[in-house]
Amino acid sequence: MTERIGLKVRTRSAPRVLHQLTGVIAQHDGDILSVDITGAGTAEARVYFEIDLPEPPKLLVEDLGQLDVVHSVELVNTLQTIYGKRIIIMGGGAQVGQVAIGAISEADRHNIRGERISVDTIPLVGELPLADAVRAVARLPRASALVLAGALMGGEITEAVKEVRALGLLVVSLNMAGSVPDVCDLVVSDPVQAGVMTVMAVADTAKFSVDRLKRRVF
Amino acid sequence: MTERIGLKVRTRSAPRVLHQLTGVIAQHDGDILSVDITGAGTAEARVYFEIDLPEPPKLLVEDLGQLDVVHSVELVNTLQTIYGKRIIIMGGGAQVGQVAIGAISEADRHNIRGERISVDTIPLVGELPLADAVRAVARLPRASALVLAGALMGGEITEAVKEVRALGLLVVSLNMAGSVPDVCDLVVSDPVQAGVMTVMAVADTAKFSVDRLKRRVF
Repeated sequence: MTERIGLKVRTRSAPRVLHQLTGVIAQHDGDILSVDITGAGTAEARVYFEIDLPEPPKLLVEDLGQLDVVHSVELVNTLQTIYGKRIIIMGGGAQVGQVAIGAISEADRHNIRGERISVDTIPLVGELPLADAVRAVARLPRASALVLAGALMGGEITEAVKEVRALGLLVVSLNMAGSVPDVCDLVVSDPVQAGVMTVMAVADTAKFSVDRLKRRVF
Repeated sequence: MTERIGLKVRTRSAPRVLHQLTGVIAQHDGDILSVDITGAGTAEARVYFEIDLPEPPKLLVEDLGQLDVVHSVELVNTLQTIYGKRIIIMGGGAQVGQVAIGAISEADRHNIRGERISVDTIPLVGELPLADAVRAVARLPRASALVLAGALMGGEITEAVKEVRALGLLVVSLNMAGSVPDVCDLVVSDPVQAGVMTVMAVADTAKFSVDRLKRRVF
């Protein structure tokens, strides 16, 4: 039975440390989902792993602890357990703020019933920075849906939306000028409603499925 | 001259792949800051690295491309470049939403002047889930400040706040019941103002420093 675990490893900060740690994890057939490192370049680095492990974590923790470079190893809750699925909202400050209000209120209702949905935002201006940010959502851990909240978006942003949708991301747009609304899963005119609907679409505790909607524009 | 680069590597999805990739990066004296993996367990995995590299990335990209398991290697903008510093807001849905409004509007003003500040939120209820989430902020990439937005927080949450402040995180609290406000860097009564002040405190383009404030409660 594969179990998803979080491991916090304090190590000497040195080159090749990650190579040594991943070697031990590979010996235990651990499938590494993410690695995050803080304090690189200081005396002690903290390395956080999320790993799918086919055995109880006890042996892996012991073997990691026996490496010379390792100061301590601690089993922790995964970020997936703590922060769950992420909704990403990007665009203009005024619109992003209103979508966030809707998304946060709705996420609260689902989280109270045992889910974990977090709502992340970045206010951004300009076609290329926004297109970059849209493409980068595919590299963000745990991202489930993207809301584009602005007054005018098109060109390269539209191409970026097509790319991330092809990777399986749900993309919602406000009703705005430009070609972005034409290529999104869902277009919603009211920003609060856009935030609420997006959270409902990714929540396991909601009876709302974008696939089953009869129309795409609200 | 060390340069921070982002690398998107498409690989065969197999055990030990990360161990091989980190071996090549170690040969080039790359200091790995974060690794994120999507599509693990499917036919093709996408591995995203952020690396401090003391040489131009050309040779590293070539050497990675020569590994059997690697399908392609692409140099991309880092998530640090695209999403920048993160403000994390957690607590009750009503308060988190209002703090987000202030933080997003203020981040917009700084991002227009060339910064990258993103605002991430999670509505959560309960002492232990909140304490876990506070402690986990130390494991979140690029987190600069935390805002606690609720009506009552204390106990284990207060201990967690002390721990993350000791690691250098700025912690702001709404004016609320419980012992959390006593241990934070800053206590702000109005939620919109709390969001604005937190963003100002981490922005490079703002003339606002928590250290230079004459009082701690607003």
